[in-house]
Amino acid sequence: MTIKLIGFLISTSTLRVIICLKELGIPYELEPPASFQSLKDKDYIANKHPFGRIPVLFDGDFRINESRAICRYLVSKYQGKYNNTILIPNDVYKAGLVEQFISYESCYYDSPVSQIVSQELLAKKFWGKDPDPEVLKEARKNLNKVLDVYEKLLEGKEYLVGEFSLADIFHCPGTNLAYGIVTHSDLWDNRPNVKNWWNNLCNRDTIKKSFEEYRA
Amino acid sequence: MTIKLIGFLISTSTLRVIICLKELGIPYELEPPASFQSLKDKDYIANKHPFGRIPVLFDGDFRINESRAICRYLVSKYQGKYNNTILIPNDVYKAGLVEQFISYESCYYDSPVSQIVSQELLAKKFWGKDPDPEVLKEARKNLNKVLDVYEKLLEGKEYLVGEFSLADIFHCPGTNLAYGIVTHSDLWDNRPNVKNWWNNLCNRDTIKKSFEEYRA
Ligand SMILES: N[C@@H](CCC(=O)N[C@@H](CS)C(=O)NCC(=O)O)C(=O)O
Ligand SMILES: N[C@@H](CCC(=O)N[C@@H](CS)C(=O)NCC(=O)O)C(=O)O
Repeated sequence: MTIKLIGFLISTSTLRVIICLKELGIPYELEPPASFQSLKDKDYIANKHPFGRIPVLFDGDFRINESRAICRYLVSKYQGKYNNTILIPNDVYKAGLVEQFISYESCYYDSPVSQIVSQELLAKKFWGKDPDPEVLKEARKNLNKVLDVYEKLLEGKEYLVGEFSLADIFHCPGTNLAYGIVTHSDLWDNRPNVKNWWNNLCNRDTIKKSFEEYRA
Repeated sequence: MTIKLIGFLISTSTLRVIICLKELGIPYELEPPASFQSLKDKDYIANKHPFGRIPVLFDGDFRINESRAICRYLVSKYQGKYNNTILIPNDVYKAGLVEQFISYESCYYDSPVSQIVSQELLAKKFWGKDPDPEVLKEARKNLNKVLDVYEKLLEGKEYLVGEFSLADIFHCPGTNLAYGIVTHSDLWDNRPNVKNWWNNLCNRDTIKKSFEEYRA
């Protein structure tokens, strides 16, 4: 039975799952909901996502929502089935270090990146507001500090923990958006190790392809 | 070799790991850092946590930081070794549903709970400020919506996914603080299923013991 992913291509959370599906070589079908408003319909809330969000994944009769949970489920069930890509290593120590970087992303990296994105891209589009220079300044300051740490941790490494992993994937959707804003790409480009890491990610076939679909 | 946990008893992130250690029956020693300021020392940053935080766990020579990553590591390595408590089930579908609720906590539940806690407990203590009534009102409004969903999802269940799991543990540190503020405990107490769930957690020996140590 083909895996069915409910989501929109323009959604960052959906993109997270799509990269994971492609990396693991899992066949899937994307099924967009009727509209963003329809996510708040009684039926959607009852049968798809109790908080009215995308993405949601159906694997036969099994339903799971929340992008990070979906990715972990896919790894547990399908890693090694369609190709040799390892997103969470079997070795408990290596897996622990992947988890460590997954937490760095959600606790330190994501917040300033999301602030830049919401100020620069969403404020105008959805709320008709200009970006707030103070919020942007603070976000850049915080992200500079975080990326200084990343620069050290990435010394001599192609990916966050050495080998490519789920931690890299979790950094992709937000970074793709923020890096795409020309006035902010310097944050990554000014740091050789960080720049090299982001290049390595962007040059992976699956990620390149996912970003292209997302842009389209 | 005994596991060494670097942290303070008054830290919520440390508490998260302590509950996990106790639930899995793992012997450990708590080693408090010299002070909160010492977390920013060059040596601490280089050898303990690159972002200068607690907790950090040493398992022999292996070092891991970030509370959620540490808990996952402990589950992968020690679940089933010291007792029969299962925090992440082996079954991929059951594990997927645990992951789903872990994501609900971090994406929907944690933010309003943390806002209540920081307004009511931290604002005064650390910044000498009174709580902001507007922020509190908004946080309560958001948490009410989230707990309405939880109330439905908890129907007929003792714990979030039925059986006790890591998802329940991840809810403990924040809820313990927010629920302890008498003017906010109504949020949980007004909902029979949510109230029953929180009671079940508070009545577990390990959690009771962990909360007592935390309060001391
Ligand atoms: N924590 C969720 C977030 C999902 C989320 O907020 N998705 C957005 C699209 S990227 C959405 O559904 N927005 C619609 C809404 O909030 O009404 C996940 O990781 O899947
Ligand atoms: N994401 C981290 C958060 C750790 C954290 O922020 N811990 C606090 C204590 S609860 C801390 O170290 N504060 C000291 C500081 O930020 O300087 C985790 O889950 O372990």
